[in-house]
Amino acid sequence: MKVYFTEEGSAEAVNARILPEADPRLRRVMESLVKHLHAFVKDVELTESEWEYAIDFLTRTGQICSDSRQEFILLSDALGVSMLVDAINHRRPSGATENTVFGPFHVADAPERAMGDTISLDGKGELCLYSGRVVDLQGQPIAGAFVDVWSDNDEGFYDVQQPDIQPPMNNRGIFRTGEDGRYSFRSIKPVSYPIPDDGPVGKMLAGLGRHPYRPAHMHFLVGAMGYDKVTTHIFVAGDPYIASDAVFGVKESLIVDYQHSQNPDCPWNADFDFVLSPKS
Amino acid sequence: MKVYFTEEGSAEAVNARILPEADPRLRRVMESLVKHLHAFVKDVELTESEWEYAIDFLTRTGQICSDSRQEFILLSDALGVSMLVDAINHRRPSGATENTVFGPFHVADAPERAMGDTISLDGKGELCLYSGRVVDLQGQPIAGAFVDVWSDNDEGFYDVQQPDIQPPMNNRGIFRTGEDGRYSFRSIKPVSYPIPDDGPVGKMLAGLGRHPYRPAHMHFLVGAMGYDKVTTHIFVAGDPYIASDAVFGVKESLIVDYQHSQNPDCPWNADFDFVLSPKS
Repeated sequence: MKVYFTEEGSAEAVNARILPEADPRLRRVMESLVKHLHAFVKDVELTESEWEYAIDFLTRTGQICSDSRQEFILLSDALGVSMLVDAINHRRPSGATENTVFGPFHVADAPERAMGDTISLDGKGELCLYSGRVVDLQGQPIAGAFVDVWSDNDEGFYDVQQPDIQPPMNNRGIFRTGEDGRYSFRSIKPVSYPIPDDGPVGKMLAGLGRHPYRPAHMHFLVGAMGYDKVTTHIFVAGDPYIASDAVFGVKESLIVDYQHSQNPDCPWNADFDFVLSPKS
Repeated sequence: MKVYFTEEGSAEAVNARILPEADPRLRRVMESLVKHLHAFVKDVELTESEWEYAIDFLTRTGQICSDSRQEFILLSDALGVSMLVDAINHRRPSGATENTVFGPFHVADAPERAMGDTISLDGKGELCLYSGRVVDLQGQPIAGAFVDVWSDNDEGFYDVQQPDIQPPMNNRGIFRTGEDGRYSFRSIKPVSYPIPDDGPVGKMLAGLGRHPYRPAHMHFLVGAMGYDKVTTHIFVAGDPYIASDAVFGVKESLIVDYQHSQNPDCPWNADFDFVLSPKS
């Protein structure tokens, strides 16, 4: 029985210590983690000073976390791990609207609004009429679906980031479809903004030559009884960061052409249908 | 050109963002990290609640760190990563004394002692005469080598952990070999002790059914001009944790049979030769 640590058998030596009574799923996750972590260290032949840097980086990442900042989620986002976990856990049949990252700015108690209402309350930015349908995989309208929407304001901040500046519930609202499955509301054409880049994750991005911006997007959470809930965005086609989202949230099917309208009070139109798949 | 994120091409999508001007070594390390991290997430099909647990675990690990505690080093130790980095960076020719982990309890300004001195100053524990030689790969004595030794006391604590209880520099000293390459000193036969297990790493060990103990050991840092410095321990044969060191530090070549002596004041003998290889 190999009990002592060797460079060659390093992961096996660590995993051999897990006792039979350990939870089977915890065992499975930890064995895989150790195997891949050791394979990484061997692949790059990590130096002692690089290891020290990593220890310090992780420590700083933990220590900058607070009630209003989660730097480890940011790290997960910037390394594409959040999107990967999202993809693995939300595989859908072809034709269904794709998921993307939830983000930290949703609030649970946004107000229900009437169809056609304007949810941008601060009077900033260019208004856009959002409309479309919530349908099933056969294209049939879904009645009683909820469409929960939120976005930044024209300056790139969510209301919860600026509680002393923005009106409460600015750029938020929940809509409920009728028999026709239709929704519509007015809000702004959103703008791109940077993820917080004054901490360890920002330093990492800078080292890799990466910018911290997310392309302009509207968040949606859409669901109905009997259907799989979709957490997604629609993205503004033509945004300069559309192909380089700092958190990898963009999927081609979620990019929407914003169209000029004839209405001077509301110069943009954006149409998007949400296609829900049955609950699995 | 694939620019958007997909589950299949997730690591490639992340690594494609690294700009040409990034430092080549940083690029190499990060590309491998992303590749292995994504492979792990895919292998276990990490759930969203497991991802949330991981984010919280890492955050707690960072937040418990302080001037006197480094939980990320403990995590690296408990996952065998510290030993792996040590092994990769200290490969030596056959016959040379093997390295093991440095640990957090070395102090830079330990006193030089005369050969034969007793370094255990608190009068606790069973005394042991340590002796041996510092030699080269051909077995020739090395003169002027330093032998820096430190250990816990008989209650399993290092002096720096108990500044108000133990005499300063308890169980520490530096010895310098003469022409014969010999060293000798008295200290205690050390005892096994747990790594700090009241934080996230302790919880992880408990979940895996692992105990937090290190088998009894003496730390040594041994070097001489022109030779590769050795950071190592000698371990007490027969220790109940010898085959299950919580940090994987034990190597077979470092286990020493402590022998009973005829001297009632110093009932143990431990002999060990340090074999240094030329600086590469």
